[in-house]
Amino acid sequence: MLGKNRIQRIQKLHQKKYRLQEKRFIAEGTKTVLELIKQGFPIESIVATADWIKQHIPENQELICVEAEKFELEKISCLQTTPDVLAVCELNQVTPQKIDAGQLTLVVDAVRDPGNLGTIIRLADWFGVPQILATEDTVEWSNPKCIQASMGSFIRLQPCYMQLDELETLCRTNNSFAADLDGENVYSASFDSGGILVVSSESHGLNQVFQRSVKQILSIPSAHASDEGPESLNVATATGIFLSEFYRRKYFAKS
Amino acid sequence: MLGKNRIQRIQKLHQKKYRLQEKRFIAEGTKTVLELIKQGFPIESIVATADWIKQHIPENQELICVEAEKFELEKISCLQTTPDVLAVCELNQVTPQKIDAGQLTLVVDAVRDPGNLGTIIRLADWFGVPQILATEDTVEWSNPKCIQASMGSFIRLQPCYMQLDELETLCRTNNSFAADLDGENVYSASFDSGGILVVSSESHGLNQVFQRSVKQILSIPSAHASDEGPESLNVATATGIFLSEFYRRKYFAKS
Repeated sequence: MLGKNRIQRIQKLHQKKYRLQEKRFIAEGTKTVLELIKQGFPIESIVATADWIKQHIPENQELICVEAEKFELEKISCLQTTPDVLAVCELNQVTPQKIDAGQLTLVVDAVRDPGNLGTIIRLADWFGVPQILATEDTVEWSNPKCIQASMGSFIRLQPCYMQLDELETLCRTNNSFAADLDGENVYSASFDSGGILVVSSESHGLNQVFQRSVKQILSIPSAHASDEGPESLNVATATGIFLSEFYRRKYFAKS
Repeated sequence: MLGKNRIQRIQKLHQKKYRLQEKRFIAEGTKTVLELIKQGFPIESIVATADWIKQHIPENQELICVEAEKFELEKISCLQTTPDVLAVCELNQVTPQKIDAGQLTLVVDAVRDPGNLGTIIRLADWFGVPQILATEDTVEWSNPKCIQASMGSFIRLQPCYMQLDELETLCRTNNSFAADLDGENVYSASFDSGGILVVSSESHGLNQVFQRSVKQILSIPSAHASDEGPESLNVATATGIFLSEFYRRKYFAKS
């Protein structure tokens, strides 16, 4: 049995305030937890059904495993379908790495929806982006909905949150791009495919700080005239299209 | 006042069964409802606060407008933030159009998540896809979460649901592609950018019917080796990347 105190403590981790205070977050489901273990991610404890532990954790493995009944897992899970396992993980500060001019660093600006941030992390991981930086008004990556949408990619790629003025300096001192509605056509513009790419929530638009500090503003052209058709694309799908185009140019463009 | 009966009738439209039975669906929020009116979409009635009606509907407009209090709108809304207006719209059968070989027709296979379908409709609309066809195990586009995610694009582009064998015939008799994990690299493969593109839910994988009937299978390459990194991309973001690449080739590729 998990016990009332442990249940309450884990339930609190559904909230940002307690995640930051306790420096812990939760990750759920067999695939994600096995990947956490495989990658050596710092885990405080694993909470799972007795069957799950028996099936997946060798007895000699040095992991704190706490047995729980399914109804207890239901109480502590954020998922619609209660999983058989949940890991309480350490939430450590991510430190920024030096910008690699040959690679693409992604800057995420003001993305408040955790599902969108998780999808962006998954996309950036897919295309081998070595680093994601984020403005402080972007949702925390440890949000359970972000963890879920990232499908395990948060294990390899955790955004590093930075002050706006630090990000501005990085944009000024490196090759840098921002995605916005009124920029150069991303398919026909000339640019080097390494540097910094800033993407921002479509509902807030690009922050002026980036508008004035990046070297180039790029857009995904629409088939419609500007006063017809959709006003914008969702930030996660637009980020996917930009990352794809940068990736294509770097590795597959005919010279 | 809206009244109990009307409230119950609209609440029932949150469910697929009643939408199909009543041939009605709901669309919410000022932007969407004004676009519905502008485009002449068949609307049964508009339910809105007195202020909203006064502000947006000229007295001579032939639209049935029902005044509602905010607490009544809260009861009939599917949104987290209750809107000031909601339209009860007619749900009509979409008829398939002839495949245009010079354009890209999108086939959506087994996409069960309404948010994903809505995002796909928005993307297809952005890139000027003239027609979306869908397998019958794809979620209905009139689902409130799909309507919301499509951000008004459902007004211009409603998927037409078809039997699997009809879709198979279309794939066999036209230039056709499917997106899958083990196909030709979409960035380097040769292909004509018109025809049919089949996309399917990443959790179910590509249906064998399409695997055997399309002319070409295409993939988005990952930066990771096949046993590392993310297993797949979300179907909506992958669709965005494919549509982008087809669009780029059609209009912006250097010959």
